[in-house]
Amino acid sequence: MKRLLLTGAAGGLGSAMRGRLKGLAEIVRVSDIVDLGPVADHEEAVVCDLGDHSAVDRLVAGCDGIIHLGGISVEDKFSKIMNANLLGLYNLYEAARANGMPRILFASSNHTIGFYRQDEYLDHEAPLRPDGLYGVSKCFGEALARMYFEKFGQETALVRIGSCMEKPKSHRMLSTWMSYDDFLSMIECVFRAPRLGCPVIWGCSNNDTRWWDNSHVSYLGWHPRDNAERFRGEIDEAMPKPRPDDPIAIYQGGPFVNDPIFPED
Amino acid sequence: MKRLLLTGAAGGLGSAMRGRLKGLAEIVRVSDIVDLGPVADHEEAVVCDLGDHSAVDRLVAGCDGIIHLGGISVEDKFSKIMNANLLGLYNLYEAARANGMPRILFASSNHTIGFYRQDEYLDHEAPLRPDGLYGVSKCFGEALARMYFEKFGQETALVRIGSCMEKPKSHRMLSTWMSYDDFLSMIECVFRAPRLGCPVIWGCSNNDTRWWDNSHVSYLGWHPRDNAERFRGEIDEAMPKPRPDDPIAIYQGGPFVNDPIFPED
Amino acid sequence: MKRLLLTGAAGGLGSAMRGRLKGLAEIVRVSDIVDLGPVADHEEAVVCDLGDHSAVDRLVAGCDGIIHLGGISVEDKFSKIMNANLLGLYNLYEAARANGMPRILFASSNHTIGFYRQDEYLDHEAPLRPDGLYGVSKCFGEALARMYFEKFGQETALVRIGSCMEKPKSHRMLSTWMSYDDFLSMIECVFRAPRLGCPVIWGCSNNDTRWWDNSHVSYLGWHPRDNAERFRGEIDEAMPKPRPDDPIAIYQGGPFVNDPIFPED
Amino acid sequence: MKRLLLTGAAGGLGSAMRGRLKGLAEIVRVSDIVDLGPVADHEEAVVCDLGDHSAVDRLVAGCDGIIHLGGISVEDKFSKIMNANLLGLYNLYEAARANGMPRILFASSNHTIGFYRQDEYLDHEAPLRPDGLYGVSKCFGEALARMYFEKFGQETALVRIGSCMEKPKSHRMLSTWMSYDDFLSMIECVFRAPRLGCPVIWGCSNNDTRWWDNSHVSYLGWHPRDNAERFRGEIDEAMPKPRPDDPIAIYQGGPFVNDPIFPED
Amino acid sequence: MKRLLLTGAAGGLGSAMRGRLKGLAEIVRVSDIVDLGPVADHEEAVVCDLGDHSAVDRLVAGCDGIIHLGGISVEDKFSKIMNANLLGLYNLYEAARANGMPRILFASSNHTIGFYRQDEYLDHEAPLRPDGLYGVSKCFGEALARMYFEKFGQETALVRIGSCMEKPKSHRMLSTWMSYDDFLSMIECVFRAPRLGCPVIWGCSNNDTRWWDNSHVSYLGWHPRDNAERFRGEIDEAMPKPRPDDPIAIYQGGPFVNDPIFPED
Amino acid sequence: MKRLLLTGAAGGLGSAMRGRLKGLAEIVRVSDIVDLGPVADHEEAVVCDLGDHSAVDRLVAGCDGIIHLGGISVEDKFSKIMNANLLGLYNLYEAARANGMPRILFASSNHTIGFYRQDEYLDHEAPLRPDGLYGVSKCFGEALARMYFEKFGQETALVRIGSCMEKPKSHRMLSTWMSYDDFLSMIECVFRAPRLGCPVIWGCSNNDTRWWDNSHVSYLGWHPRDNAERFRGEIDEAMPKPRPDDPIAIYQGGPFVNDPIFPED
Repeated sequence: MKRLLLTGAAGGLGSAMRGRLKGLAEIVRVSDIVDLGPVADHEEAVVCDLGDHSAVDRLVAGCDGIIHLGGISVEDKFSKIMNANLLGLYNLYEAARANGMPRILFASSNHTIGFYRQDEYLDHEAPLRPDGLYGVSKCFGEALARMYFEKFGQETALVRIGSCMEKPKSHRMLSTWMSYDDFLSMIECVFRAPRLGCPVIWGCSNNDTRWWDNSHVSYLGWHPRDNAERFRGEIDEAMPKPRPDDPIAIYQGGPFVNDPIFPED
Repeated sequence: MKRLLLTGAAGGLGSAMRGRLKGLAEIVRVSDIVDLGPVADHEEAVVCDLGDHSAVDRLVAGCDGIIHLGGISVEDKFSKIMNANLLGLYNLYEAARANGMPRILFASSNHTIGFYRQDEYLDHEAPLRPDGLYGVSKCFGEALARMYFEKFGQETALVRIGSCMEKPKSHRMLSTWMSYDDFLSMIECVFRAPRLGCPVIWGCSNNDTRWWDNSHVSYLGWHPRDNAERFRGEIDEAMPKPRPDDPIAIYQGGPFVNDPIFPED
Repeated sequence: MKRLLLTGAAGGLGSAMRGRLKGLAEIVRVSDIVDLGPVADHEEAVVCDLGDHSAVDRLVAGCDGIIHLGGISVEDKFSKIMNANLLGLYNLYEAARANGMPRILFASSNHTIGFYRQDEYLDHEAPLRPDGLYGVSKCFGEALARMYFEKFGQETALVRIGSCMEKPKSHRMLSTWMSYDDFLSMIECVFRAPRLGCPVIWGCSNNDTRWWDNSHVSYLGWHPRDNAERFRGEIDEAMPKPRPDDPIAIYQGGPFVNDPIFPED
Repeated sequence: MKRLLLTGAAGGLGSAMRGRLKGLAEIVRVSDIVDLGPVADHEEAVVCDLGDHSAVDRLVAGCDGIIHLGGISVEDKFSKIMNANLLGLYNLYEAARANGMPRILFASSNHTIGFYRQDEYLDHEAPLRPDGLYGVSKCFGEALARMYFEKFGQETALVRIGSCMEKPKSHRMLSTWMSYDDFLSMIECVFRAPRLGCPVIWGCSNNDTRWWDNSHVSYLGWHPRDNAERFRGEIDEAMPKPRPDDPIAIYQGGPFVNDPIFPED
Repeated sequence: MKRLLLTGAAGGLGSAMRGRLKGLAEIVRVSDIVDLGPVADHEEAVVCDLGDHSAVDRLVAGCDGIIHLGGISVEDKFSKIMNANLLGLYNLYEAARANGMPRILFASSNHTIGFYRQDEYLDHEAPLRPDGLYGVSKCFGEALARMYFEKFGQETALVRIGSCMEKPKSHRMLSTWMSYDDFLSMIECVFRAPRLGCPVIWGCSNNDTRWWDNSHVSYLGWHPRDNAERFRGEIDEAMPKPRPDDPIAIYQGGPFVNDPIFPED
Repeated sequence: MKRLLLTGAAGGLGSAMRGRLKGLAEIVRVSDIVDLGPVADHEEAVVCDLGDHSAVDRLVAGCDGIIHLGGISVEDKFSKIMNANLLGLYNLYEAARANGMPRILFASSNHTIGFYRQDEYLDHEAPLRPDGLYGVSKCFGEALARMYFEKFGQETALVRIGSCMEKPKSHRMLSTWMSYDDFLSMIECVFRAPRLGCPVIWGCSNNDTRWWDNSHVSYLGWHPRDNAERFRGEIDEAMPKPRPDDPIAIYQGGPFVNDPIFPED
């Protein structure tokens, strides 16, 4: 690739992945709504509000691949989610359509299916069961991406990220964790495939206690190598086991199922 | 029921159903963003913009059932769909939550699955394949309703309406048509059931060439009686058969699959 | 058939069916643990405790068909269920094996799956979810019958009876009711078929609000004609609608899910 | 249609349907390898060996619909089946491809799945289990038709005919019978549909004891009206019930499963 | 755990596992109907007849986990199976319910599904096909456990043990073998999980020729490490290969399918 | 085995496997329609036209296992495919039936399902979608083998070979490649199993990007060890990536989907 766009580059996950993308494209265009800090030689930085249609158009122009981590990534009030995750995503897809339809990796979320229990094993066709407004916004995103695929041929990987961080931080994350290395190798597979289509990809490492079945995307050849199990001792020491009647031990979405609807001010 | 709310009561479908709801509740509160015309003895009329949070709250207060036909019901520009079908639906569910969670019949649409071919027979768990921004907004609505059900217990019937009108107007509608009488009997079943849950219901009559399987909601006891087949001759006379390569003959969503994205001004 | 055995002939369902069996066999051998009352010309009566191995053997000898309604048919203490429904059923199958393996219609029950919700539509392969010791005993019976089928070729119809009575007596029975006429026509189909195998048959009439799918036994040609719906008005008048949080409105097994384990004295 | 071709028109089924096709097209071209008898005004007769490539090409030229009943329709020696059902079918599809790809109704057979038991209920995706060389030749035909559909767009209805005759002649045919009227209405549906695709259609009437599920082709709107059940008494009188261990009572293919491989001379 | 109960501790499997349980709880209460031999420091021994209600109650009191290997574990006469595996299991669950509902690992068996062929690959929802009275008693046990789970919240792991022994002893066991180490690691996973539910777990090692799919319990994180394949040479030398028509080569239940019903004396 | 027959031994795959079969049987009978070159000590060579019934009978006589690679293995004109793959296969099965029914490994092909897209993951029951006359002939072969299995008990492994060669030669083959070593170990498993049945086996190595699920034959214990992924670099260097709209990047059958029907001369 010549130019790869990373949105949400100043966020937690964005910051972590930004440094790892160097080899994937000649130029990595990093973007966020806040300042992006120092810019490396292979980077170009663009501050952009996803809710601004023409700014997003300029952002996407010239890119031949997009990793879309931007937007709200936790439960929040609806107006903020609407601007960033609904209007923002529409803007992104319109910009992609106007600029040659670069392939998109869309950071969807396990919160699209957060109300499944942790003793259920899901495949990619499990009906949606979002656990909050954030999860609902990701359901919207998946539907929007699917429509652009069927109508215009726009390809997207719908990555339902579990918990992508340096290491798992709770007992639940022993199931949902995805290491940065595994995310990176997934990104490589997504942009390498001659044809991608518009598949759901479950975003977790090769964890002993994983809940999700990725065999339907075996054509991508992604084989995560990390396993959260090696952190079990550390977590057992750091915190008590969740009680069986705690949502964090019941639902795949964990504590999100308990979040209230956040009121507008 | 004491008071049943009908939104979108000035629209095409709303107008047709309004007169038929008399026996279902003591008072039918009819609502739309435009004038509602003469008001019958058993009715009360409320003009309301669904995008207005507190207006919607007042609209819902005191109702113990909601038939939500309001919002945009064809392809349109995103800003309008966002206001009416995304923000508007959020407002409606927040209002319901604040007002005793009256049961909701939500007019979803076959355009949530419009990209399936007409030779496919669908059940309620078929993955979504919306055919435009309107269809995407209905996917959002179904996800939002599902979340309110799992999180708060709010019950909704997700009615994927085919073509609800006086009679079918095209060859495609021989499959998708739902008569007003059948819609009315469905409404009765939905509000009669001791427990509803949050099921998808395919909204079409007992047409010979129907595409959709409602056996999963047989617990509701809805048995549509009409059959579009009796209009075949009339339609054959009125218009030529669609050509096999015309989307109206290929896709369940019919002409919607050809709609462009409508530009903002 | 020359001689058809009816067990449980003095029970509620047995008494109702006894008179209807006349045309099915030259002799109907009616049996129960209590007195059987006056005996018709085409009948012979045998008082028998199902827990008595050799008495059951004598009961079955000479029969070329068995309708097994005998045993405990409601929740009860385990010792009684064990004697009648576990030991008793074992005795019956051993007697059948020793006496030419007459075809058996076994009265299983919807209480084998009573913990499914009423908004679920079940096929015959739905995993078992019994709602009490009685339901568990019927799960045992189905497993025993299946084993005798695979090991010895003994054929059995596993009839999961809903509510077989003169008419439905509650809102739940609008879904589960089976009329005596429909049960009779099922019995005829079961004994008429050249080969029966060992199928599950859902025992309910053609009710508008039925929960169960019998298409897998369409080879038997059973088409129930009655429909509980015509009793809806009568029931609506006779009793209040169940509240949505009442198990009678939630679970297919209805009030059985609330039964305690009955203590031994 | 202007010209409809009927192959196998001198065979048992062909003779019966020939007279019924009058209204379907201006001209019905009837064909067989043997003499076709008197020719009606709306007919033209062509004697043709399906194994003769150029004769088949001439046969198909000018037709805009084909009902292909020709070929061997019972178990026979391989050389005959190969000529008529393998080479002959290839010739037919090549001729269709060369002549504008008229829609084809291909008489496949229940003998493609004859080794399923009669207590199994099949949908159109059940893996093939042919019961003889004849059944294997129909599996070949279905595969060939499918390939021409995917590669060239040639549409075919793969009609797995049960027992199409004036009335059922055995207990097995109470399940497999298709009346001439129902076959005719199916033909009308197949040629009427704007798009057909390449579906399997189970060819039996609305028999009480049918084994096959046609819901996947509900888009065609075919609703068979006849029911073999009304002939049960007649059959019960005319012949003894099959014994349970007779293949005619065990397998869907009935006596075909017992046919030997017919030796070449 | 403070106190872990092991029933059947004097049996073949019980003896093997008894020594391995040391680290799992402060005290291991070992129990059987026969003498339990020398008792280790971390152990307490209780002789108990499972058929004795109050003895079982005392046995369970004070335990916070139960590994239930007790009862009859091969084909036997019904009276013995009824006492130990039906009444005994009921007693155990009543005792658990009266004593704080400690989590239970229940030794179910592959003989619940013994009549499946060895060329079938099963998931946990495959309908039951027991191969004898012993297998039927385990079907009863699974149904009873399920009912206690749904009704009272009692958690159980339904472990369908294949062949748990030091090493495989026949060609069939190359598929069914579970090593003691793998069973131990499964036990650890079962008692470690914050929530268990009531899942079926197939009890075999990571054998090359396994028949059973455990992906539905991937949330438990059990990864068996042993593989019976390394014993193939040894078995090939020790005994002839089974003949293809020997049930040991046909059915998953192996020789059990040939066991007769054992007569009462 | 005493004598193992290898047909097609002079072809590309036959030549490669011929040398590897030494240890599998005392005598390897190698056969082809062309000269077989020098014959090793453990071999016997037979030149044979598969279209010649009695020659094939002599070929099979005395063999207790058959690896059938013979016939046409690419797209060709129908007359040639009919002789070698239809008539030839019939001859082979008749010869096997007349000679003790030695187990057969039949080289079927991925071209039976070549019209599935590369982003679909298939199990063994996916409906057939052949991509040419060659693929259709393999569908015929699978149906014929199945019929001989059900009717006569003849066992066959239906091996849908991907690309069996020394190393993958295109990007598509990174998914479809099967190494010679893996094919050899599959052959060993097929002939070792006490019972084989008539299963489909997907013939590819343990490639990162494989499309096919072999879990249903886990009872055979075949675990391919090679992985085409290690050749990715080599292929990336040797040729450009396929364009996304090139059939080689879209369909599992790759370039075969573009093959025309080859005309007879």
